[in-house]
Amino acid sequence: MNKDIPVIALQRLPIYLNYLKSLPKERRYVSSGLIAEALDMGEVLVRKDLAYTSATGRPRVGYVTEELIAALEDFLCCNGTRNAVIVGVGALGKAVTGYGGFKNYGIEIVAAFDSNPKKIGTSVAGKPVYDIADAAEVLGRLNAELAVICVPAACAQEAADLLIKNGIKAILNFAPVMIKAPEHVAVRHIDVAANLAVLSSMI
Amino acid sequence: MNKDIPVIALQRLPIYLNYLKSLPKERRYVSSGLIAEALDMGEVLVRKDLAYTSATGRPRVGYVTEELIAALEDFLCCNGTRNAVIVGVGALGKAVTGYGGFKNYGIEIVAAFDSNPKKIGTSVAGKPVYDIADAAEVLGRLNAELAVICVPAACAQEAADLLIKNGIKAILNFAPVMIKAPEHVAVRHIDVAANLAVLSSMI
Repeated sequence: MNKDIPVIALQRLPIYLNYLKSLPKERRYVSSGLIAEALDMGEVLVRKDLAYTSATGRPRVGYVTEELIAALEDFLCCNGTRNAVIVGVGALGKAVTGYGGFKNYGIEIVAAFDSNPKKIGTSVAGKPVYDIADAAEVLGRLNAELAVICVPAACAQEAADLLIKNGIKAILNFAPVMIKAPEHVAVRHIDVAANLAVLSSMI
Repeated sequence: MNKDIPVIALQRLPIYLNYLKSLPKERRYVSSGLIAEALDMGEVLVRKDLAYTSATGRPRVGYVTEELIAALEDFLCCNGTRNAVIVGVGALGKAVTGYGGFKNYGIEIVAAFDSNPKKIGTSVAGKPVYDIADAAEVLGRLNAELAVICVPAACAQEAADLLIKNGIKAILNFAPVMIKAPEHVAVRHIDVAANLAVLSSMI
């Protein structure tokens, strides 16, 4: 992926992609104005975001829908496939492991980890569940760079430390705690309850 | 909650709260500088965020830790309890329903909905699962204002329309599509795959 795109813009690209894919096949052309209206966004912003991709719009007609879809997909996956692991296969970990949407972004979930002997050796959504104690060996072998942490808050930092020590470069954290990581590791935090609280404050 | 606080600042309050709660009991005072360092944030920003609450720091000493925790909790829940429902009890819906962290924000999950006859009438994490076809009656009775959408992308808009028609004022959407809603309804979108893709682009 092009690193010069701001993260905030990058986050919007999948939204355009989802919208474009939802259009009827007959719609051969699509303008930035139409996209902006449908998604309730500013047209200038849409045009600016799409300019990060290789797609080029034509005056008055707009983009060829298929080309724009291809350009967005290409942009979002142009690094080739990256391997990701899920840590913690409780209810949330299971849901994330089984979520099919990752491959649209060139990401493949290759394995899951847990510490519960009843779960180790089983599989979730077709992915093997390994003992977290074997993380060093397994992560090296699988060439995984991304991890999603779905363990309880109390174990999240320990899990992160172990992952980072064994080559994980980016962590998506669902546990409701801040994770500390060295600068070369990218961390994002999704706190479901906090997100709902923010919504609650808006009504 | 105080509506004058920017959403971006509001989202940081639970992070401070989590950090403060993780401190050892002996730490009676805490300064904005210490919080900033621990969370890798700017001290001015921390002080500004905390100023939205009723907590007041003292020069050189900082905040009384317990008072700051109470002020944050009070700020985040000062509307009293709000009722929320989960729509779709697949793996993700189950995980969200069972997630205990909502009550820290004055939010209570009171029920779930599904359209699968095998799930209707059961309970998930102690919450009853109702038929989505009965949404009108159930939502009115439960006085629910918040909803979390955990259905597949193809059903998300339909679910949102039904919820909005029956009094839901804020929707947290996990389905990987944009949901359209009238202006008086607050919507937030959490796209797990997109979040991981953003991370992937940063490494």
